[in-house]
Amino acid sequence: MKARLNSDEYVAGLITGNRVILAKAITLAESKLPEDQELIEEVLEKILPYTGNSLRIGITGIPGVGKSTFIEVFGKYLIQNHHKKIAVLTVDPSSRLTQGSILGDKTRMEELSKNPLAFIRPSASGEALGGITHKTREAILLCEAAGFDLILIETVGIGQSETAVKNTADVFLLLMLAGAGDELQGIKKGIMEMADVLAITKADGDNSKRATEAQADYQHALHLLRPDESGWRPKVLTCSALSGTGIEEIWNTISDYIKLQHKTGLLQQKRQQQEIHWLHECFNNLIKTKLSDDKQLSILFQNSEYRVRNRELSAPHAARFILKEFIATLKAD
Amino acid sequence: MKARLNSDEYVAGLITGNRVILAKAITLAESKLPEDQELIEEVLEKILPYTGNSLRIGITGIPGVGKSTFIEVFGKYLIQNHHKKIAVLTVDPSSRLTQGSILGDKTRMEELSKNPLAFIRPSASGEALGGITHKTREAILLCEAAGFDLILIETVGIGQSETAVKNTADVFLLLMLAGAGDELQGIKKGIMEMADVLAITKADGDNSKRATEAQADYQHALHLLRPDESGWRPKVLTCSALSGTGIEEIWNTISDYIKLQHKTGLLQQKRQQQEIHWLHECFNNLIKTKLSDDKQLSILFQNSEYRVRNRELSAPHAARFILKEFIATLKAD
Repeated sequence: MKARLNSDEYVAGLITGNRVILAKAITLAESKLPEDQELIEEVLEKILPYTGNSLRIGITGIPGVGKSTFIEVFGKYLIQNHHKKIAVLTVDPSSRLTQGSILGDKTRMEELSKNPLAFIRPSASGEALGGITHKTREAILLCEAAGFDLILIETVGIGQSETAVKNTADVFLLLMLAGAGDELQGIKKGIMEMADVLAITKADGDNSKRATEAQADYQHALHLLRPDESGWRPKVLTCSALSGTGIEEIWNTISDYIKLQHKTGLLQQKRQQQEIHWLHECFNNLIKTKLSDDKQLSILFQNSEYRVRNRELSAPHAARFILKEFIATLKAD
Repeated sequence: MKARLNSDEYVAGLITGNRVILAKAITLAESKLPEDQELIEEVLEKILPYTGNSLRIGITGIPGVGKSTFIEVFGKYLIQNHHKKIAVLTVDPSSRLTQGSILGDKTRMEELSKNPLAFIRPSASGEALGGITHKTREAILLCEAAGFDLILIETVGIGQSETAVKNTADVFLLLMLAGAGDELQGIKKGIMEMADVLAITKADGDNSKRATEAQADYQHALHLLRPDESGWRPKVLTCSALSGTGIEEIWNTISDYIKLQHKTGLLQQKRQQQEIHWLHECFNNLIKTKLSDDKQLSILFQNSEYRVRNRELSAPHAARFILKEFIATLKAD
């Protein structure tokens, strides 16, 4: 393969399910080079008709809950029993630093990663002014164009990942451990209430009883706390990646949820809102890139942040000044 | 008073606690006229040293929970027993359309609104491209400069108000009714988990027993669901605006929370994050105003939203095109 493909070559590779080109395209989406960004935008525009047909499942759980093991077993079940093509995208690689390298992801899903019907990809994070931008949406669309009809978006739920889930997934599965909440330290507030399906993992051996008790407790608590939207009450299930129990029930519950969302029109509505949100996000990111690309503006912004944080400067005043300098720079360009 | 004050006149009026000027200043902050915006920015910059010394309490609850009645009693208690000057800011006036006019707010807090130590202000909403911008932060700072040391930010928790609370308040009080969750329909997901203090209202007469039961249930559920941040476990209390019971305990609990936040340095950290967030928000709003002020750009953006929503156009591609046109317009300006 030559070093640089054009957009038509990317498109042709993607829609014929070429995995090497899919991987290359995701890398392109994650690149910060302007020429790469423009190329991937062209690709995304051209593959648009081939996208949107997958089910996008957000899977969140703190380190230690057994996400990779669950995804390994869940993915194999879906391939074998439902003839799905599975793509696994991992957001939050930065959080992984504490528990292993990014490359560790693939080896932790050993069997799945070797399956020709599965594609596993840890997503790199791109830093932008004022936040971290993951190219999760781009990766989803590229996987869809390459024929993957089930996208699992894996996050740890501590950083900005819950926004990634909210803005990209059709359904949100939260994995939890039995044990009265103490191990949830560090998970972001509000994540529990956002979940559509919850599963207590490691419900095997000595842990079975505790898992069942936790299930009842959480189900009761959710009934009390969580409002009923669209008629759906979040379900709490148990599962064991070791014995395989509960995996089918989780899939059936997710299917039930999606059917209801589809029937009520809420799935389409959610996806449309996600698209609009993405447009605004893309535009804001382009503006921020313009700002950070200019060294003087970048310093001005950082300096303003510092002074606003320390209350030496008011935010509206600082923002106005940055805008003024920004426009002057654009004009001089 | 002459029709238009300059920034020094506003500042002088504010720091001497002139309520007419305070009201005028908030109106100025809510104005969309460029000259008004620039004037209020000047005012905000000048009053900066006189701000930041209040306690900012977010109070959320669905219509019917008795927010106004609670605030009336709570506010009077704080004035009488703790010699506080109370400002009440109501976000979400649009949600009020279903249950009364904006003007209804003041009459619903009849006694408090007549108290010289209280200031009640329903906040108007300003529509911006892609969302609604409330000038809550501006109003808070103006009230602080005018000597109010307790700011109650009242929201209904269904729209974007929870963001307003998150980005402005030091502590978040959620008012709820007894009754196993069913009346929570419509409240936004995640709000429950965001609350620092919860209070079951209308705990009087026949309802007392139900309120106490609900208190125990919610306390149990929160213990299970909500992670412990900074050592604080959200407390569930009961209160009655009718009999006045529970009001003092709510204040004591809020005080305990704030003391802990202060001691752990988390209060300062939260406020600094809120300032930074505000800077980004101000900058994004200025960009959006620039866009929507230009008729052609405004139509382009709306049209792009429509096409992106319907998947005729991909978001990154649309965003790039809008940026190109935006820069061209700025250059031609």
